Amino acid sequence: MESAEILLAKGGGETEKQVYTLRKGDNDLAIRYELTASLAKYVALYYNDLTFPFRRYEIGKVYRGERAQRGRFREFYQADIDIIGDSGLDIMNEAEIPSVIFRCFTHLGLKSFVIRINNRKVLNGFFEILGIDNKTTTDVMRCVDKLDKIGVEKLTKTLTSDLSLTQTQTEEIISFVTSQDDPFETLAKYKGQNEAFDIGAKELEALRKHLSGFGIPETHYKIDLSIARGLDYYTGTVYETYLTDYPDVGSICSGGRYDNLAEYYTDRKMPGVGISIGLSRLFYILQEQGLLNDTYLSAPADVLIIPMTDDLSHAVKLATTMRETGLRVQIYSENKKFKAKVSYADKLGIPFVVFLGEDEIEKGLITVKNMTSGEQTTASYGILTAGICDKIKTLREGTPIKEA
Amino acid sequence: MESAEILLAKGGGETEKQVYTLRKGDNDLAIRYELTASLAKYVALYYNDLTFPFRRYEIGKVYRGERAQRGRFREFYQADIDIIGDSGLDIMNEAEIPSVIFRCFTHLGLKSFVIRINNRKVLNGFFEILGIDNKTTTDVMRCVDKLDKIGVEKLTKTLTSDLSLTQTQTEEIISFVTSQDDPFETLAKYKGQNEAFDIGAKELEALRKHLSGFGIPETHYKIDLSIARGLDYYTGTVYETYLTDYPDVGSICSGGRYDNLAEYYTDRKMPGVGISIGLSRLFYILQEQGLLNDTYLSAPADVLIIPMTDDLSHAVKLATTMRETGLRVQIYSENKKFKAKVSYADKLGIPFVVFLGEDEIEKGLITVKNMTSGEQTTASYGILTAGICDKIKTLREGTPIKEA
Repeated sequence: MESAEILLAKGGGETEKQVYTLRKGDNDLAIRYELTASLAKYVALYYNDLTFPFRRYEIGKVYRGERAQRGRFREFYQADIDIIGDSGLDIMNEAEIPSVIFRCFTHLGLKSFVIRINNRKVLNGFFEILGIDNKTTTDVMRCVDKLDKIGVEKLTKTLTSDLSLTQTQTEEIISFVTSQDDPFETLAKYKGQNEAFDIGAKELEALRKHLSGFGIPETHYKIDLSIARGLDYYTGTVYETYLTDYPDVGSICSGGRYDNLAEYYTDRKMPGVGISIGLSRLFYILQEQGLLNDTYLSAPADVLIIPMTDDLSHAVKLATTMRETGLRVQIYSENKKFKAKVSYADKLGIPFVVFLGEDEIEKGLITVKNMTSGEQTTASYGILTAGICDKIKTLREGTPIKEA
Repeated sequence: MESAEILLAKGGGETEKQVYTLRKGDNDLAIRYELTASLAKYVALYYNDLTFPFRRYEIGKVYRGERAQRGRFREFYQADIDIIGDSGLDIMNEAEIPSVIFRCFTHLGLKSFVIRINNRKVLNGFFEILGIDNKTTTDVMRCVDKLDKIGVEKLTKTLTSDLSLTQTQTEEIISFVTSQDDPFETLAKYKGQNEAFDIGAKELEALRKHLSGFGIPETHYKIDLSIARGLDYYTGTVYETYLTDYPDVGSICSGGRYDNLAEYYTDRKMPGVGISIGLSRLFYILQEQGLLNDTYLSAPADVLIIPMTDDLSHAVKLATTMRETGLRVQIYSENKKFKAKVSYADKLGIPFVVFLGEDEIEKGLITVKNMTSGEQTTASYGILTAGICDKIKTLREGTPIKEA
C-alpha cells in the first residue's frame, strides 16, 4: 500500500481508473498496480542502508480494477528484476538483464523464445535526424511500438494522417524499423549526424559483445530496431521477449533502462535497468498452449499411506520413518470406503500408495502401489522405500514447462 | 481482497477498526487482516474441485490498521497451515499439526520450545460440571486464556468480581488450570460427570499417543489444562507454542480445531484444524533476542568479481563459467576506487572476492580473497573455484536460527 499521491505520480488516466484506493481515517491510500513505484520509494528511503548497484528481484501480487478476462486478472502476480545504480550504471548491467531472462526461462524448461533488444537513444536520435520535432517524437515512439499489432499499412497511415509526418519521413521510418539487413549496417548508414543516435548505436554494440560473454546463444536474442516500448520512462536499452512459436501471445517479459528512477522522492540521480514478467498471465498462456509438463511432480505428497486397520498408530510410525528419508508422506485418516481412499491419491496425483493392513503389520512388511504403472508389490519396508526414493528423484528432475 | 461483508462476518468491534476498506465503484471491499476468512470462502467455492481432507499452507501478507510498534506492524506476513475435512476429520490430524510445528521450527534451527496443548471440550465440560451457565462460559474461557499475562491473583479477582463466580467455583478453576500433577490424573478426577468433558479427555489421550508416533520428543510438547485461546471458533484441541527461554514473548504459533469453517458460505459441515505463525513478529523477536545465525549465508551472491581493467569482457566470461558450477556470481561493474569495490562485497556479506587484473588475464590465473579470513591466493581458475564451491557448501549447511 502506498499513499495514492505517490502511486499515481507517474500514472496517466488509464492507471487512475484501475487503481484500488482506500480510506482509513484521513489517509488516502492505494494498492499497488505494479511494483516499480514502491521500489523507487524504497531505494530513496533506504538510500543510506543500501549498497549500490542495488540488485533485487520481487515476486508479488498487484491489483488492477479492469474487466477480468482470459489471462487478464484483477489480482495477479508480477515478477520484477532490477539493478539500481547510484548516479551511474555501467552498460554491462543492461546486458546482464537478458542473461537473467535467458537463464530463468531455460531453467523452467522453455526453449523457443527470443529476446528482442533495441535502444531508445537510437530511435529518438533517428527521429531527430528526420527532422521530427521533440513533441511528436513520443507519439511516433508509441505508434512504432504497435507495429507488430497493427502492421505496416496501418502504421504508415497513422504516421502520415494522425501525426502529420511527411511521406519521406514515414517511408524512412518504415524502412528503418522493418529492415531485414544486419541492424548494425542500418545504424552505420546514419552515423555522425546525431549525438544521441551515435551513443545509442555504441551502447547496442557494447551490449551485443557482453550478451555473448554472458553465454546467451545467438538464437535467443535479436537486436531489433522496431522495439520501442510504450512507457515514457525508458531512456536507453529496451527489451521484449517473444515465444518463437506463439508470436500472437505478445511479449512475455519486457523492460528497459531508465535514467531517473526515484526523482519523485530524491534529488539523487538513480539510473536503473529492469524487467517485469506477468507471471499469472504467462502461466495461463503456457497452460492454454499445452506447454506445461504433465509429468512434472506437482502433487502435495510423494506417498499416501492408507491404513487398513482402525488403529492408525502403525501408519503414524511408518509415516514418521519414511519422512526421515526426505519423502513427503501423507496418511489417509478418514473412515471411508477403500475406493475413496485410493481415489484421494489418484485425484491429487500422488505417485505412490502404501497399504498397511493387519497382515503387513504382523509380518513387518508393506504393500506399495505405483499409481502410474498400477504395479503392486509387498516386501520389506527398506527395499520398497529405497525404490520409491529413486523414482521420486527421477520425477523431480523434470521442468515445469515442456515444449513438444 | 474480499467483500467487506465476508471479511467482517466473524469479526468483532476491534477487528472492524483495524480493517482497511476499499471503494471501487459500488463495491465495498476490504483487505484481509488474517488468512482464515479467505480459506473458508475458497473451500466452499471450490468444494467440487478439491479433494478432502484438504491440506494447505499459505504464506501471505495481512493488514491491520493499528498503531505500528516494536514487533507489531500494519503490514506483515502470516503463515497458516490447515487441514479441512468434509463432514468429519479424524483426531490423528490434530496430532499431525504439532508434528508440523516441531519439524518446521527444528528445521529452522530452533531448539528450546514447547507446544502446549489442551482441549476446549475439557474446559467447557469442566465449567458445566462446576455449574457455570453456558453464557458465562465464553467469558470464563477468555479470562483463563489470560492467566499467563495476569497471574493467579488477578484471575481470581476477575472470576469472582467481574463474572460473579462463587468462591468454590473460582478455587476449583484455579486449582484445575494451575495443577502441577500429571494432567491425565487431574482429568481422571472429574470423569463420568459430563459427556463433553469425557470426549475431550479421550481426545487428549488419543492425541498424546499419536504425538509420540509422529516423533515429537516429550521435551517439546505438554498437555496443559490452562491453555484456552481467546478466539470463539475453536471447538476441540487448541495449541500454543512458547520459547522455553523467553516465556515473556508469548505464543509464537497458535491454533486449534474448529468444527464449522465455512458456515457463512455453505450448509456443508467442514471441520478443520489449523495453526498460524506471525512470521514478521517471530523473526523480529528472534533478531531482538540474538537468535538469528550471523554466519548463515544470506548474502545475495557467493562471489563478487572485481575487474581491474576497463574492459569488462573477461570478467563477464569468468562470471558465466563460474555460474555454470552453481555459484551465485556478481560482477562489480562501476568505475569506483578499489576500496569502494571491495567494500561492496563487505557490506553485502559476500564471502569471496575475485580480482581479475591484466596480470591475471595474461597468465590465465585468478586472485581470490576470502573475506572472512582475509586470506588472498593467486592460482588457476579450476583449483580456486573448487575451493570456493566447497566452502560455500559448508556455509549453506547452517540454519537461519541458532541458539547460544
